[in-house]
Amino acid sequence: MATTVTVPSPSAPSTPLLKDELDIVIPTIRNLDFLEMWRPFFQPYHLIIVQDGDPSKTIKVPEGFDYELYNRNDINRILGPKASCISFKDSACRCFGYMVSKKKYVFTIDDDCFVAKDPSGKDINALEQHIKNLLSPSTPLFFNTLYDPYREGADFVRGYPFSLREGAKTAVSHGLWLNIPDYDAPTQMVKPRERNTRYVDAVMTVPKGTLFPMCGMNLGFDRELIGPAMYFGLMGDGQPIGRYDDMWAGWCMKVICDHLGLGVKTGLPYIWHSKASNPFVNLKKEYKGIFWQEDIIPFFQNVTIPKECDTVQKCYLALSEQVREKLGKIDPYFVKLADAMVTWIEAWDELNPSTAAVENGKAK
Amino acid sequence: MATTVTVPSPSAPSTPLLKDELDIVIPTIRNLDFLEMWRPFFQPYHLIIVQDGDPSKTIKVPEGFDYELYNRNDINRILGPKASCISFKDSACRCFGYMVSKKKYVFTIDDDCFVAKDPSGKDINALEQHIKNLLSPSTPLFFNTLYDPYREGADFVRGYPFSLREGAKTAVSHGLWLNIPDYDAPTQMVKPRERNTRYVDAVMTVPKGTLFPMCGMNLGFDRELIGPAMYFGLMGDGQPIGRYDDMWAGWCMKVICDHLGLGVKTGLPYIWHSKASNPFVNLKKEYKGIFWQEDIIPFFQNVTIPKECDTVQKCYLALSEQVREKLGKIDPYFVKLADAMVTWIEAWDELNPSTAAVENGKAK
Repeated sequence: MATTVTVPSPSAPSTPLLKDELDIVIPTIRNLDFLEMWRPFFQPYHLIIVQDGDPSKTIKVPEGFDYELYNRNDINRILGPKASCISFKDSACRCFGYMVSKKKYVFTIDDDCFVAKDPSGKDINALEQHIKNLLSPSTPLFFNTLYDPYREGADFVRGYPFSLREGAKTAVSHGLWLNIPDYDAPTQMVKPRERNTRYVDAVMTVPKGTLFPMCGMNLGFDRELIGPAMYFGLMGDGQPIGRYDDMWAGWCMKVICDHLGLGVKTGLPYIWHSKASNPFVNLKKEYKGIFWQEDIIPFFQNVTIPKECDTVQKCYLALSEQVREKLGKIDPYFVKLADAMVTWIEAWDELNPSTAAVENGKAK
Repeated sequence: MATTVTVPSPSAPSTPLLKDELDIVIPTIRNLDFLEMWRPFFQPYHLIIVQDGDPSKTIKVPEGFDYELYNRNDINRILGPKASCISFKDSACRCFGYMVSKKKYVFTIDDDCFVAKDPSGKDINALEQHIKNLLSPSTPLFFNTLYDPYREGADFVRGYPFSLREGAKTAVSHGLWLNIPDYDAPTQMVKPRERNTRYVDAVMTVPKGTLFPMCGMNLGFDRELIGPAMYFGLMGDGQPIGRYDDMWAGWCMKVICDHLGLGVKTGLPYIWHSKASNPFVNLKKEYKGIFWQEDIIPFFQNVTIPKECDTVQKCYLALSEQVREKLGKIDPYFVKLADAMVTWIEAWDELNPSTAAVENGKAK
């Protein structure tokens, strides 16, 4: 029988879960008025704001929030030459926030995402649901037809091997979106009026060996378990591609989770995605990615990480070598990306020396 | 963009889908009063009733249904010595109905399953949903976070490779259960009062390479695509095990679908499962299976079907050899089961000579 994770059920912020163990990372180019709507849920937490674009611009944060803010000048100052691995003029810059966080958990959200309502009309505390997802195990090795077996009112069904019911540690919780679905430019163009109105009341584990498109809009993860794999790549200014930052992170993260025996969940919570981005601008950003992903997906489906890689960092570096070697043949961009992946790990270890030490110690 | 499968939306039986191409298979030991509740949805279809247990007993079928009924004497007469592969005193006998059907599609349902209601209070036409699932493609090669991309109001999300959006043919549609969940005996014993009240409004593809526990209570499939793999094994009278019939079929079917590039869906539709079976009786039936499945699952996770197997029959025979060789070491039961798997295919081909011929012709 699955042990139900007992988490206080009221969504009232009186006893916020993991208050001192979780940072909320927000990439932005504008004033953060959207936080007003999230106040009841986010105010107890620390925010890390990564200001994209013009660093001389002042970003206004509503009063009462506890935050630190980094603009491009800060990133350059803190990382020095290694700042080259952090994208500019693209929300991929958010991963700098993951690096400077000192907490065990990270929740990241876009500034055009608002509080959604569940079918009963109640405001959804997205953060609380991510925390529940992260604190309960995943089931990557076998599919449970009644979805998350650890959820109240559910369990493992007949035929589920008992030896697998302990599950795996959950590294990532991928949330979804009501209203504007996360479509690519071609789909946006063909279905400009499509809105996601279907509330699917489920959380599920993405099975081992299966890739999925991870969206960075509404995402929680365990920094200690998987942080160094959450690199959002080189996108935006000076790069030939955009809108594949979260996808890239998702594919890298997933093969590493599969290798290390960690779980990835998707489903609840929903946020309300308010505004469709411009499909013409998006097509320009996605254009090369649409072709490249036809090679990238088979690459990730077939990649194998050497057995001796027992830390996320080692896995990630092994992956970067294969990216260079195999995807580098498609376009020189991937060689640059492979270099950036290495730089990212170096920067991560520099800013997180204790983890690096522990990991290295563990590796010996 | 996904092509939405246009299926008439009213659940009124005025234009029943696939009326002449689908059989409903029901294994039973009692009068089929449960059909009264299904009358608006099932009456246009042909029923194949497989009477289990004492063949001298008369099973009453409500008036107005078009059916054929087979008892044990019929099975013995039709199959002769090959009848040994059909279980007795176990609902596994239902697979005899799959064999004698002449239709392209089969829907099978237990006689303690009633019409469930969706969250709006409307009766769910389970059969219509299965047909929708079977007539639209599956997506076994890559996970779509907004669930079935072919459903109205949904599509493939950003990052989903365009080359995979045509999907795969759907071979199986696995439906779920409200009220009494399909738990094993230990879970039933620990959670005697648990009821499934969560309506998850989703249909999804079980990814390639992932096994799941297939329940035979509420199940649709494409007989032409996968029929010969839907053998429910040797259970019940004279066998050391029960309640693994559908699991066995599900595991065999899934590895064959993966090999042949076919899709398997799970989720909607729900039926209302009325009565929990006796957990003490169930424990007795499941006892050996609980141990054996710890070896069976790794066996199926690692099984490979030779490339040259290009029909379901060939795949199934190749699988039977491996069952004999590898699982036979666990218990002599699996040698007997492997023999029965071969007998099943022989009987299938005997009763379905045109398919057999086509398949053999195709193979040359």
